[in-house]
Amino acid sequence: MRSLEFWFEFASTYSYLSAARIEDVAAGVPVRWEPFLLGPIFAEQGWNDSPFNIYPAKGRYMWRDMERLCADQKIPFAKASRFPRSGVVAARVTCLARATSEPWLPDFVRAVFRANFAEDREIGDPDVIRSILDSLGLPGARIVEQASAPDNKQRLREQTQRAAERGVFGAPSFVVGGELFWGNDRLEEALAWARSGP
Amino acid sequence: MRSLEFWFEFASTYSYLSAARIEDVAAGVPVRWEPFLLGPIFAEQGWNDSPFNIYPAKGRYMWRDMERLCADQKIPFAKASRFPRSGVVAARVTCLARATSEPWLPDFVRAVFRANFAEDREIGDPDVIRSILDSLGLPGARIVEQASAPDNKQRLREQTQRAAERGVFGAPSFVVGGELFWGNDRLEEALAWARSGP
Repeated sequence: MRSLEFWFEFASTYSYLSAARIEDVAAGVPVRWEPFLLGPIFAEQGWNDSPFNIYPAKGRYMWRDMERLCADQKIPFAKASRFPRSGVVAARVTCLARATSEPWLPDFVRAVFRANFAEDREIGDPDVIRSILDSLGLPGARIVEQASAPDNKQRLREQTQRAAERGVFGAPSFVVGGELFWGNDRLEEALAWARSGP
Repeated sequence: MRSLEFWFEFASTYSYLSAARIEDVAAGVPVRWEPFLLGPIFAEQGWNDSPFNIYPAKGRYMWRDMERLCADQKIPFAKASRFPRSGVVAARVTCLARATSEPWLPDFVRAVFRANFAEDREIGDPDVIRSILDSLGLPGARIVEQASAPDNKQRLREQTQRAAERGVFGAPSFVVGGELFWGNDRLEEALAWARSGP
């Protein structure tokens, strides 16, 4: 069975949905949590903001769609009063956790998404990320500091570069053996692809 | 049970998927076939071409995604050598059929989509539309001529205006009792919404 790369961005609403359910639906398919930043990828497309802000009809639809999907899947949701929020600090912490295979990585990722899209907290603020780590029983201040070291910042830049090399243009995306799947709606299909492989 | 409006554009690959399966999955939900043009709606967003051409990574992904989905769902597919093709003539014919409740409307719509995305034919050419109508046992030349009458051209402009009023920003879209659902992936959810209503 092939593993599945889960490419997510903390500013992305639909990434929240996938992070919330991926371990339940993966059912044995190994999941690799791959944080990256959409900003540099959107900048390549000529966007300096979320397309949900640039295109208002699309944005109105997205918030309503999230509301319906979260209600249906019983995932807590509150429309963020600021959008998008910077996912840089949280993504750096995730890169650090990824580099040292920390078992708390998925719990941290889910907690940050919940903070952004259910609790309306400012996840761009390092103090908020620290308090999330603390609440998981981790040394928040120390981890946030380590995450801002130059070599770890470089890890996040390399992750975003790896995403671009795979053809990722939005989040969430899933990659299985060279095949790209875009969007929370494609998670089941990506998992089926992983199961059908060698 | 509420009815479902199916908003489609003949240039749209994912509209092809929905047109191919909507009557099978609707299973009793009344479907209203609503042709419109994406061009004026995309122009409002500042695009003078398909976003799949403007954003190449998204375009490459879309064609591969279509290939996978059509293989999986056993829908014939061949990458169109020209994209997008104008759906104006076909949409006008559909408006005419809609205005007079012609029973051949769904067959015609599916045949045009197949011509574009499985047979690589130039659906922007009135002669191709005429021959599709002929192949359905209809007087193709007469229908194409009637479809280009000023009052029928106006019908298509009004359809596109109605789409915009509903918040439609892409195709396919589904509208059920004021709720908008975007994308072939949302067809089942839109149908569930229709079944749950008064």
